[in-house]
Amino acid sequence: MAEFHFLNKVQPPQVTSLNLPPNHSCNLVAKRKIVVRPNDLPILQPDGVLVKPGPSCGGVGGRPVKYPIVMGHESSGEVIAVGDLVKSHKIGDRVAIEPGLPCRRCINCKEGRVNICLDMRYCGAPGSVGSLSRYFTLPADMAPHIPDHISWDEAGCIQPLAVGVQIGKRVDLRPHKTLAIFGCGPIGLITAAVAHAYSARKIIAFDNNPDRVEFAKKYISPLTGKPIIDHVFLIDGSGAGIGDGEINDHEDHEETLGDRKWEQAKKIAAEFAEKAGLLEEEGVDRVVEATGAEDCMLLGIAIAKQGGTYLAVGLSHIQTNNFPTLAVSNKEINVMGLTRYTASCFPSALDMLSRGVVDLKQLLTKTFPLTQATEAFEAVAAGGDMKVIIKNQEGFDN
Amino acid sequence: MAEFHFLNKVQPPQVTSLNLPPNHSCNLVAKRKIVVRPNDLPILQPDGVLVKPGPSCGGVGGRPVKYPIVMGHESSGEVIAVGDLVKSHKIGDRVAIEPGLPCRRCINCKEGRVNICLDMRYCGAPGSVGSLSRYFTLPADMAPHIPDHISWDEAGCIQPLAVGVQIGKRVDLRPHKTLAIFGCGPIGLITAAVAHAYSARKIIAFDNNPDRVEFAKKYISPLTGKPIIDHVFLIDGSGAGIGDGEINDHEDHEETLGDRKWEQAKKIAAEFAEKAGLLEEEGVDRVVEATGAEDCMLLGIAIAKQGGTYLAVGLSHIQTNNFPTLAVSNKEINVMGLTRYTASCFPSALDMLSRGVVDLKQLLTKTFPLTQATEAFEAVAAGGDMKVIIKNQEGFDN
Amino acid sequence: MAEFHFLNKVQPPQVTSLNLPPNHSCNLVAKRKIVVRPNDLPILQPDGVLVKPGPSCGGVGGRPVKYPIVMGHESSGEVIAVGDLVKSHKIGDRVAIEPGLPCRRCINCKEGRVNICLDMRYCGAPGSVGSLSRYFTLPADMAPHIPDHISWDEAGCIQPLAVGVQIGKRVDLRPHKTLAIFGCGPIGLITAAVAHAYSARKIIAFDNNPDRVEFAKKYISPLTGKPIIDHVFLIDGSGAGIGDGEINDHEDHEETLGDRKWEQAKKIAAEFAEKAGLLEEEGVDRVVEATGAEDCMLLGIAIAKQGGTYLAVGLSHIQTNNFPTLAVSNKEINVMGLTRYTASCFPSALDMLSRGVVDLKQLLTKTFPLTQATEAFEAVAAGGDMKVIIKNQEGFDN
Amino acid sequence: MAEFHFLNKVQPPQVTSLNLPPNHSCNLVAKRKIVVRPNDLPILQPDGVLVKPGPSCGGVGGRPVKYPIVMGHESSGEVIAVGDLVKSHKIGDRVAIEPGLPCRRCINCKEGRVNICLDMRYCGAPGSVGSLSRYFTLPADMAPHIPDHISWDEAGCIQPLAVGVQIGKRVDLRPHKTLAIFGCGPIGLITAAVAHAYSARKIIAFDNNPDRVEFAKKYISPLTGKPIIDHVFLIDGSGAGIGDGEINDHEDHEETLGDRKWEQAKKIAAEFAEKAGLLEEEGVDRVVEATGAEDCMLLGIAIAKQGGTYLAVGLSHIQTNNFPTLAVSNKEINVMGLTRYTASCFPSALDMLSRGVVDLKQLLTKTFPLTQATEAFEAVAAGGDMKVIIKNQEGFDN
Repeated sequence: MAEFHFLNKVQPPQVTSLNLPPNHSCNLVAKRKIVVRPNDLPILQPDGVLVKPGPSCGGVGGRPVKYPIVMGHESSGEVIAVGDLVKSHKIGDRVAIEPGLPCRRCINCKEGRVNICLDMRYCGAPGSVGSLSRYFTLPADMAPHIPDHISWDEAGCIQPLAVGVQIGKRVDLRPHKTLAIFGCGPIGLITAAVAHAYSARKIIAFDNNPDRVEFAKKYISPLTGKPIIDHVFLIDGSGAGIGDGEINDHEDHEETLGDRKWEQAKKIAAEFAEKAGLLEEEGVDRVVEATGAEDCMLLGIAIAKQGGTYLAVGLSHIQTNNFPTLAVSNKEINVMGLTRYTASCFPSALDMLSRGVVDLKQLLTKTFPLTQATEAFEAVAAGGDMKVIIKNQEGFDN
Repeated sequence: MAEFHFLNKVQPPQVTSLNLPPNHSCNLVAKRKIVVRPNDLPILQPDGVLVKPGPSCGGVGGRPVKYPIVMGHESSGEVIAVGDLVKSHKIGDRVAIEPGLPCRRCINCKEGRVNICLDMRYCGAPGSVGSLSRYFTLPADMAPHIPDHISWDEAGCIQPLAVGVQIGKRVDLRPHKTLAIFGCGPIGLITAAVAHAYSARKIIAFDNNPDRVEFAKKYISPLTGKPIIDHVFLIDGSGAGIGDGEINDHEDHEETLGDRKWEQAKKIAAEFAEKAGLLEEEGVDRVVEATGAEDCMLLGIAIAKQGGTYLAVGLSHIQTNNFPTLAVSNKEINVMGLTRYTASCFPSALDMLSRGVVDLKQLLTKTFPLTQATEAFEAVAAGGDMKVIIKNQEGFDN
Repeated sequence: MAEFHFLNKVQPPQVTSLNLPPNHSCNLVAKRKIVVRPNDLPILQPDGVLVKPGPSCGGVGGRPVKYPIVMGHESSGEVIAVGDLVKSHKIGDRVAIEPGLPCRRCINCKEGRVNICLDMRYCGAPGSVGSLSRYFTLPADMAPHIPDHISWDEAGCIQPLAVGVQIGKRVDLRPHKTLAIFGCGPIGLITAAVAHAYSARKIIAFDNNPDRVEFAKKYISPLTGKPIIDHVFLIDGSGAGIGDGEINDHEDHEETLGDRKWEQAKKIAAEFAEKAGLLEEEGVDRVVEATGAEDCMLLGIAIAKQGGTYLAVGLSHIQTNNFPTLAVSNKEINVMGLTRYTASCFPSALDMLSRGVVDLKQLLTKTFPLTQATEAFEAVAAGGDMKVIIKNQEGFDN
Repeated sequence: MAEFHFLNKVQPPQVTSLNLPPNHSCNLVAKRKIVVRPNDLPILQPDGVLVKPGPSCGGVGGRPVKYPIVMGHESSGEVIAVGDLVKSHKIGDRVAIEPGLPCRRCINCKEGRVNICLDMRYCGAPGSVGSLSRYFTLPADMAPHIPDHISWDEAGCIQPLAVGVQIGKRVDLRPHKTLAIFGCGPIGLITAAVAHAYSARKIIAFDNNPDRVEFAKKYISPLTGKPIIDHVFLIDGSGAGIGDGEINDHEDHEETLGDRKWEQAKKIAAEFAEKAGLLEEEGVDRVVEATGAEDCMLLGIAIAKQGGTYLAVGLSHIQTNNFPTLAVSNKEINVMGLTRYTASCFPSALDMLSRGVVDLKQLLTKTFPLTQATEAFEAVAAGGDMKVIIKNQEGFDN
């Protein structure tokens, strides 16, 4: 019943009276083909706000889409009109844009798991409209206020920080826990930053890209002035090392290729655990796998402590992987899936930026105007940058 | 520091004065080779009880052992001597035998996760002594009292019921949840019985053995007088059906064999869900996988609801399997491992037998004397029986 | 933003075409003064259903109201029209009526705590309209389907059963726990029935009304054919016994009246614990206080085990009571408040009725037509009956 | 069965060979009368360590005692002998002393709630021996290692920090929550420090002692260099303000004195909430009441948010208080009791000191030698100091 969000079919006077210029939007019209062109202005609903988005952060999700679609799910902006029922917002307010629009009526929504709403509309996913445009509407309760001292650029990247907050919830990131992160891209580093703010005892991270490893080593805590991650390890991205060598015969059965990979993953994990000073405590409390690569999954379960928790964040084109199912049972591991974020994640992300305990500015490595959206997404795909900012329009200097 | 349980090296007078006959025990001396012969009497510790076990339930765990070892981890019996510090027990008490001896000192023990004790001694596992003998000692707090109206035979099978209680805890088996169980052996049926007692809304089960499917259909609730399991399905044990057919080419990548199996598992799961009246609610809340077979794992994740929980109980010789890692993330599944049972499981199992809300008697299909232990284990291995009872000694008629 | 539920101001054609007769409703026009008269027909919203309520259960909440108001928050009925966006319901469906209308937008709603919505509309409470009328509208997702084999009378009393489910959630009513209930009115007995269905180990209950004690002793389980409550105790309603006797002088301070009451409550609680066979385990795991009387609060904390949970369900006109705050700390008790029910409670209540594990029929002791609403509420106030049914209209025979 | 900890009755050779000087200990021989005199050396058990305590922190619990007793439950020291079974420790190790000795055998211990062990021995409480002596023994697993860079003085005050960790657990102190603390003594300030390290969003605190309010305002975070507590409020310690004024008549009942106090507490709480910028969010998420004063309890429940959590830490001589029981129910508050600390609290406290995210040094305001124990306890009782250190012996300079 997500249509209920779009009951009004006619633009209300408080919007038409604004005489807005065309709503230039970033349309994905075919695979990796982007066109910036005017789209219809979305209709302001009685419980909604009309927002003029400022800087957005780039990124294309891996989920299948139906073309054309307006892209964008990481933005913030200024309120320029409010619906008749809205008391919480006024024109001129600075707000973040929560890109997910849950139905509010399914049992998952009503039990607080809005992220697995059975009728979700998500910005930039099929059936919805993204935020990479001059104007955007959403329900007022999905547009939390941004404190004045948070820059527009940081605010534009609030969505991945909200995902980091949800990662912390799903992996039950209590203080004093040790954490291993696989993947030093934006989500990996933000997860580290969140864990650090939440008083993790020790954080280690892995990547197969030497540049990312170096970047991660220099990601500095605003609280201690020292690196956030205690140990960053370069792992072999060729997959060599895991699964090579002879196949052993067991008494009862022939070893499978997966089993062989697992045996080697255990050895490698033990080496890393020793280097990180974790051997004696038999691994880490929490693992966040943010690459989607099979080798990292194997290492992740191998380096998890008896009774530990492993979170599957990374996505890939492959549906299945060789996974150490027996160890999951024998070590009594909790393997958790993750879908986006829940209701308090945006406010919590804003809280962290506001208190200055997480620093996103270090991650913003390049900026493009909306007219160069294609170049922006190419920069993201090239992988040389952390977060790339697209300026939806002029006038949102920090 | 598990040795701390065995501080006294000399048998105390309350035992030596009993002038007990030789302690005949069931020794596994080589792979699948059992010899019944006298072993040393274990030493009663100050906090312990000396028990004369009555009927035991058969079963050999899949974990590697070092020969010889005294087998047995499912027994109950009568207290014939108590340690000097024991106030909770007296001679003649009927008790269950908790087979695990946690160290009580590691952080897992002290946080209540005694099942993943870092220094566990477990009956019949290397470094410990099993309960298939004439006499057995254990700490008094590991010997919960058996109410008078529970038969010795049922009491002898309390351990798998305690595991069923732990399954309920790990899979968070709240009332009103729907449950799918893979495997209709003792653990599968006991899980169903526990779920039924806990007010599960609907229970479905799967097995590839037609005899077990028929047995499961006739497993009757002592509460309602009707079958416990709402739907029992025969699945194809050859693995045929899952993974056959042509490999599809996707835009970005070639489909793997695992991916193909997964696609077919989803189709089959949807068919079963429809037959069980679960299609509309998009699957089950909880899955208990008790076979260790890859096909069942795939079906299990496929039939789990968005946000559902899947418990890995089944063990196999294979360390790894094709596992639908992407679906775990996208559906936000909780995949939980399981190791044995925790502190309240035996008392809870006794509570259920005592109140008559679970019936184990239907599962006890054959009885052997201790001298025929080999035949008993062969009967278990043949798979035609549910639970096989071994009478450690005469005189424990129900 | 609860007004968002009432966006449409004009009745849609599918309702006007029905040419319905006047909407006779039960109006509370002054304190304890009820008038049945026609009220306006509520407007069907696009996501709503129009329901013709059948039997309702009587009961007036203790919260302050502004007159006049349409009463009623325990009803079920038949769908006679559906809103344009509704796909889940059709004309003729039998549905329960969830009386609470949460805003769906505040942080509590979005985190799954819809019962403490910051902008709640609740049937029969100020700002809302009750269900004691010929016609009633509500959002379709608040009207769960009633299986055919549940009688209208039982369905009309589903709301207190939903509250019983929420009590089970709040007090964390896991299987194998022991439970003490103070108050043997409808909520007390329903709590017992729910706890029994959820596999409570032992249930004891208290009331100061001998008739209610006798009624409670005869409340029979549909599962075992035996009484649901293991021990029902008559307590002294005069308050005598608690707080009488001399005041003791302590070394450091003079004993307060509250302290004296507490000391005597501990003694009395120990006596009841002994009679119920709970002395050895030092009390009960869970306490549900459903009277709002100070003596019961003191007894409730006194009979709770170290580390136990106490739920405050009972309401009274008095805001504060002498409460054993020191014992709450020293015994590490969890004292939980309760507000109504959450999203899954109605479906769970319907599930229990559908499976026949809870029996409400025993609690339905008298029936009145809507025109005799005054007599019905007088019968409730007199306290001689358990649940009183009001037939909103003819034609809902079971 | 706590005696099991004291099985050996004879001092082992590794201790007798040390030829230790007399074990001077701080004995409480009558109410507020302390004598320092030699006591017997405690016997080293096979799983134990013999420790020479360094600085201890002062403090006498409010629980009744039987004289004479050796005082002290906040110490750390150096290992000078180890039991035969101990592999984790060696002579010369620096360790903290966990003062509680749980039985490890009751159901609470085995379920991880060692703090509510049914057979607890606690340092300085009846039946046990305190740590204010030259020599002390305890099981090795109760003596966690102190990293080299933590000073002896800080290590001596690790116990209240461990209690602060437990407070965080019991009150479910997740990041981003707002917190109100009543009482700015050591426990209140340590709670604030822990909450700050755990990323609390906002912390407010209350005391009726102007000196403590000033001290609290200057308690600086080692992470931000700014005060830990956002707002420290002076409250009226005379109790004036709460409960004064005329008694109102309600329609149904006369207002009680407790009700009047509660009404005024609500007004005062609203004023503080406004000053702290919390009015709009309707109060705080978490309340820690660390004074035991009735006025603070009332204010605490009044300032808690709908659905919030209130923790009762403060003890008093009074068993009962006027407590707003109706609001606990209507606001659906969780009121939690607290008893000491659980198994991971000492390691977590050491972790925080080790990472430098909590600073205890600011709280150590005075030092005495063991021979001046009486003066030390008088200083504590006078209340002018935060934490007072007693040097059990020479040679533990930081």
